[in-house]
Amino acid sequence: MSLPQVPGFRVAGVSCGLKPEEALDLAFVVGDQPCVAAGLFTTNRVKAAPVLYDQQVLADPTARVRAVVINAGNANACTGERGLADVHRTAEEAATLLGCEPQQVLVLSTGVIGVPLPVEKIVHGLQTALPALRPDGWEEAARAIMTTDTRPKLVYRPVTTPEGPYTILGIAKGAGMIAPHMATMLALLVTDAAVPAPRLRQALTHATAASFNRIVVDGDMSTNDTVLLLSSGASGVRAGGAAFTEALTQVAQELAQAIVRDGEGATKFIEVRVTGARTPAEAEQIAQAIARSPLVKTAFYGGDPNWGRILAAAGYSGVALDPNRLALWFAPGTGADAGPALQLVAGGRPTDYDEEQAIALLAHDEVTVRLDLGMGEAESVVWTCDLSHDYVTINAHYRT
Amino acid sequence: MSLPQVPGFRVAGVSCGLKPEEALDLAFVVGDQPCVAAGLFTTNRVKAAPVLYDQQVLADPTARVRAVVINAGNANACTGERGLADVHRTAEEAATLLGCEPQQVLVLSTGVIGVPLPVEKIVHGLQTALPALRPDGWEEAARAIMTTDTRPKLVYRPVTTPEGPYTILGIAKGAGMIAPHMATMLALLVTDAAVPAPRLRQALTHATAASFNRIVVDGDMSTNDTVLLLSSGASGVRAGGAAFTEALTQVAQELAQAIVRDGEGATKFIEVRVTGARTPAEAEQIAQAIARSPLVKTAFYGGDPNWGRILAAAGYSGVALDPNRLALWFAPGTGADAGPALQLVAGGRPTDYDEEQAIALLAHDEVTVRLDLGMGEAESVVWTCDLSHDYVTINAHYRT
Repeated sequence: MSLPQVPGFRVAGVSCGLKPEEALDLAFVVGDQPCVAAGLFTTNRVKAAPVLYDQQVLADPTARVRAVVINAGNANACTGERGLADVHRTAEEAATLLGCEPQQVLVLSTGVIGVPLPVEKIVHGLQTALPALRPDGWEEAARAIMTTDTRPKLVYRPVTTPEGPYTILGIAKGAGMIAPHMATMLALLVTDAAVPAPRLRQALTHATAASFNRIVVDGDMSTNDTVLLLSSGASGVRAGGAAFTEALTQVAQELAQAIVRDGEGATKFIEVRVTGARTPAEAEQIAQAIARSPLVKTAFYGGDPNWGRILAAAGYSGVALDPNRLALWFAPGTGADAGPALQLVAGGRPTDYDEEQAIALLAHDEVTVRLDLGMGEAESVVWTCDLSHDYVTINAHYRT
Repeated sequence: MSLPQVPGFRVAGVSCGLKPEEALDLAFVVGDQPCVAAGLFTTNRVKAAPVLYDQQVLADPTARVRAVVINAGNANACTGERGLADVHRTAEEAATLLGCEPQQVLVLSTGVIGVPLPVEKIVHGLQTALPALRPDGWEEAARAIMTTDTRPKLVYRPVTTPEGPYTILGIAKGAGMIAPHMATMLALLVTDAAVPAPRLRQALTHATAASFNRIVVDGDMSTNDTVLLLSSGASGVRAGGAAFTEALTQVAQELAQAIVRDGEGATKFIEVRVTGARTPAEAEQIAQAIARSPLVKTAFYGGDPNWGRILAAAGYSGVALDPNRLALWFAPGTGADAGPALQLVAGGRPTDYDEEQAIALLAHDEVTVRLDLGMGEAESVVWTCDLSHDYVTINAHYRT
């Protein structure tokens, strides 16, 4: 099988010494021509230097992007003026290498907070990466941006249109500090479709709301979360309508779900589906509360069909609900692969379900939880994982 | 040392068969005369049957309480009409035994959700408890209401006034599902001071806001949380002013801190103090976000001075802050026992603190975290614990 590529982009993943043992830690993504770009960033008040920089670059609606530099191993957050200077130095070096303007370069960082960025390592790494750029280097790039991830996340989707074909490709990282509204999560999406800037922003906003903002690992939100979308236009196919947004949303959902499946210490992937709500926002608020509950997540880890914790989480979500209308089902598998559901709760009380059957169902790697509120027609879905001993192990000694 | 007692109350803790191995699981607290009472209850929309019942009883401002029945091992939550009937049956049995009205009996339950209450066991247990009632039975009562608690929580405080002495005594349980605004937490406070009902409610509201609503174990909020305060008036000392509220608050804080110290799997007790805020509410919002963060809590478990996670949690708390004004200190010990503080962050960036010193400081069982926002004079304190492997173990298999 040939490696995925997207016309108009070349990419490399190299080691620059930020991670130990010469692991890949620097991704360099270059457009042959300046690309139309859109970005969404963390809403954390404590924003990393590269987030502040990228937001400034993309605040200009005419901004065009030649390159994205992504490093792992150091978040360049809580690093003050020096952190910002280091971002500028990175962008300037990339611009010099490519013969473009520094403001055509975006910078993303992920890793430890509060440690000054060893920027000369990145400068040197970019010099190494330049001759390594190739159209099919995405796998290395996806590896280079990993932190506690156990596997790279890369999604590739060809799209057929009457005008001709184009592709959407995305890479992402993230495993902990994953909360609604983007946590220690970076995602870069690229397409060779020709999409005007306003349409690109609209599509990215829609896709992110339905993907990266619907995942929970631990409820923390990081200083560095960023989702970028670049359009090279190299396919010559004009896009940006509903079909493009739909394809982009599917790619973003697949990446977002890959992040949860690889959540720190995760042993189970859980789809939380809330139906029968008055509004989609209320359905999502309840789904998020369930997905964030440490008690729900530890029960899934233990394979314990402790539905009372799910009802309790719904109850404290802040949404007005009628406890006596609640109905709850578990099903093996998620999405289109979900199997037959077992109803555990009806009218707010347990059914006479078979406990052994419920336990057997929770032994599956993927489980769908559906909570019906019996109040309306709206629904929402959130994806989460269980909370395991390994989550604690990974995060108790992340730095030391 | 003599066992604590409060004039006007007799109490017993017995085994009625809700917990295995004949462990104490039923507390019966009886006033010699009807007591003035105040109660605060969970804000969870999914409320356990005893919560619904008690709220109804105490909605009458002239309500007087002769007895409180507390069982562990079964929460009587998500049990529908039958659950309410079981509460009434419990109150009626206690009333028959005491020769009072059923609406003079309050009922509290804690334990597994969604399992019908074996009410006949409680009825039989009350019959056993009646002849066992004695003024100094509080220790057994405190043991009887434990679930995953590893030790009973009992606080006793004599208060001296110009009018004469009175006492405040409290028992509480809780270990998991502990979140702001009362989780799977029950607390019963009694006093022999004579306090008018409106003053009793005011004092309890103040004391709870400064104690049980300032603790976090896991951020979950239960269906059963209840804090009750009874006044027998047997001392003949009239109270209810600032001195009473202050003494009650101290008892409530001591109980609340005991709950956190005994938090599920907790190995460390952490006081999160946010200073320099514009308002106390903003200070508390930030302190709560820090105290709830799984990443902060796992870092404390690992003894990792990962201050970046604390700043990140402050950043996503929803409070507008200036990252460049943040200052952070760790100190060994908490409250009045806190030792000299080590400053890790100034102006939003790390100081040149000694990492080994920070690690040594976090090896203490109790640690104070102080975050200064540099924006005003307001402050707030929240108490929390670390997130350990044992928390996961305890909650992965609570029922199975």
